[in-house]
Amino acid sequence: MAQQARAVVTRAAIISGAAAVFQQRGYGSTSLADVCAEAGVTKGALYFHFDSKEALARAIIESQHELSSAIGRDLVASNMRGLNAMIVMTLEIADQLHNNPVVSAGVRLTIEAANFASPVDAPYLDWMKAAEVFLRRGQVEGDITETVEVCSAAHFLISGFTGVQVVSDVLTRREDIQQRLVEMWHMLLPGLVPTDRLADLLTLPERIRASRQAALGQH
Amino acid sequence: MAQQARAVVTRAAIISGAAAVFQQRGYGSTSLADVCAEAGVTKGALYFHFDSKEALARAIIESQHELSSAIGRDLVASNMRGLNAMIVMTLEIADQLHNNPVVSAGVRLTIEAANFASPVDAPYLDWMKAAEVFLRRGQVEGDITETVEVCSAAHFLISGFTGVQVVSDVLTRREDIQQRLVEMWHMLLPGLVPTDRLADLLTLPERIRASRQAALGQH
Repeated sequence: MAQQARAVVTRAAIISGAAAVFQQRGYGSTSLADVCAEAGVTKGALYFHFDSKEALARAIIESQHELSSAIGRDLVASNMRGLNAMIVMTLEIADQLHNNPVVSAGVRLTIEAANFASPVDAPYLDWMKAAEVFLRRGQVEGDITETVEVCSAAHFLISGFTGVQVVSDVLTRREDIQQRLVEMWHMLLPGLVPTDRLADLLTLPERIRASRQAALGQH
Repeated sequence: MAQQARAVVTRAAIISGAAAVFQQRGYGSTSLADVCAEAGVTKGALYFHFDSKEALARAIIESQHELSSAIGRDLVASNMRGLNAMIVMTLEIADQLHNNPVVSAGVRLTIEAANFASPVDAPYLDWMKAAEVFLRRGQVEGDITETVEVCSAAHFLISGFTGVQVVSDVLTRREDIQQRLVEMWHMLLPGLVPTDRLADLLTLPERIRASRQAALGQH
């Protein structure tokens, strides 16, 4: 049992060290020797847990995906209104991206993973599914127009979010990501919500952002 | 002069070969030996033109940027309506991405370039500037609502476009990029155009796409 516990700690140290190195250098420029140095483990210990660099990258993508999926899952299980949940999901994932090294490394690896043997599409597809749930819920609640085509709208929401975080990373190292997401929602709401509710709902992203910041500031 | 002409041909062969290898393997996993093999040149010839892998990657990004910028520049110089020009720009760049290996490699390298010594932000900034020109022109012409904040709208248009092409690449190798861009415009137009013109303009992206495909089919 002590040995098993040690293995869990070692694995976590490798994931954390590898995330830092991948984030700094990108997938291709990272060597397993760099990861060992950063994580403070031997090459033998690393190979005990991961048999290749791709296996290590996939483990980070999986960790990131678990962390991000948890946000969507909790919101789907909550009784939050669909539109609010959709906005909260984007802002929370953005927070993770900005503040959790395993998440930012995982997303970066996902985007670089076009050269993996099989493509990494699960995160996009899972986020799109969550977005579909929120949009349908919003239609039932009257916040989303009935005529919105849920599948293509969810597809673009996740694509738009992906682009905002990529561009925010390049231009500001994600310093402006929350503000840019509020602007994204400003652009999208007129096509999503009923005309007679637009004036009210147009301020919703900014209100959600402000209340989240206030809540985070209390900790 | 013959020597100079040969140098130009060799440089173009290196760029083209490197684009193919970068596109297939990503930046980090590409070796200069792979590039020499693909381009059919010696290592000496490669080093005569490019003193590092990063220099080579930057040259591809510059080539891609020239090709993409030409699209924006020609449209800015044309007398096309601003909104039409904005839509055409996204569809034409998408065509380049799907069909020109130097362009797709350049965009991929731009996204992977977070680990370069200095970030590659010029393509995003230039596209945003072109988008600002088109949105302002659209405001004068009455196709874009006066109250649209041009800078943040242009910022999101380019971010949204970036996300659409990244996700389309991961999920379909960009087979669905034109269709996804039409859907993006569908989502964005209600927030951009005057209410009384929406019904008419909502079909514009699909009409532009169809006429471009008809024109391309004639060649």
